Amino acid sequence: MNKIEHIGIAVKNIDDSNELFAKLFGETYYKMEEVASEGVNTSFFKVGESKIELLEGTNDDSPIAKFIAKKGEGMHHIAFDVDDINTEIKRLKNEGFKVLNELPKKGADNKLVVFLHPKSTNGVLIELCQEIKK
Amino acid sequence: MNKIEHIGIAVKNIDDSNELFAKLFGETYYKMEEVASEGVNTSFFKVGESKIELLEGTNDDSPIAKFIAKKGEGMHHIAFDVDDINTEIKRLKNEGFKVLNELPKKGADNKLVVFLHPKSTNGVLIELCQEIKK
Repeated sequence: MNKIEHIGIAVKNIDDSNELFAKLFGETYYKMEEVASEGVNTSFFKVGESKIELLEGTNDDSPIAKFIAKKGEGMHHIAFDVDDINTEIKRLKNEGFKVLNELPKKGADNKLVVFLHPKSTNGVLIELCQEIKK
Repeated sequence: MNKIEHIGIAVKNIDDSNELFAKLFGETYYKMEEVASEGVNTSFFKVGESKIELLEGTNDDSPIAKFIAKKGEGMHHIAFDVDDINTEIKRLKNEGFKVLNELPKKGADNKLVVFLHPKSTNGVLIELCQEIKK
């Protein structure tokens, strides 16, 4: 794993939170993107080689809206950048980790992504992501 | 803020979790350290320019033990590296953030640290840390 690609933070209102995190970092987000398939609006802030991704559910059935209903706003997942996501999935399954989606799917920010089940990772929702080459 | 210095993860048993995260990263922790003043054992894994810090409470009154009792194992805080922690404290207080300790205190890994109250940061416990110059 090359680096922390981003940390995902679940928020109720992305406009309010964009303002809050702009104050925190002293600079604003560099991108917003809707991922309709996941029912989320996202925004990205750059910090060093990593990003902070804010996530707002766009409907009550989205995983983010459900997360907030259960646990409140806060840290949702950590994403690690990998060179070859299929090799990593195979390696981690062999190590006993439980993969939430067998095949990588298209995530925000031009990435192929896969999630590991938090039950196999000390309660931490972990995402692996690989940049999609053009 | 220069980079994500580390992500803190609350765990019940640091030996078991050290083994789990060594499998995840394909390499083991590079350091363990007890911070007696906070009632925690810590271990550190390197990922790119950042670290993953595992935290195990050493007694039932430690903030980590209380966190796990309330919320279970999982992500506990995000720490950002800053050049001058006192300047950042002043700036963030002016922006309306609530600081948990007015004066920076000595944390793990040779750092001066301060925490922002999660109520002022969308439920995310945020730590600022500055390397102590020798």
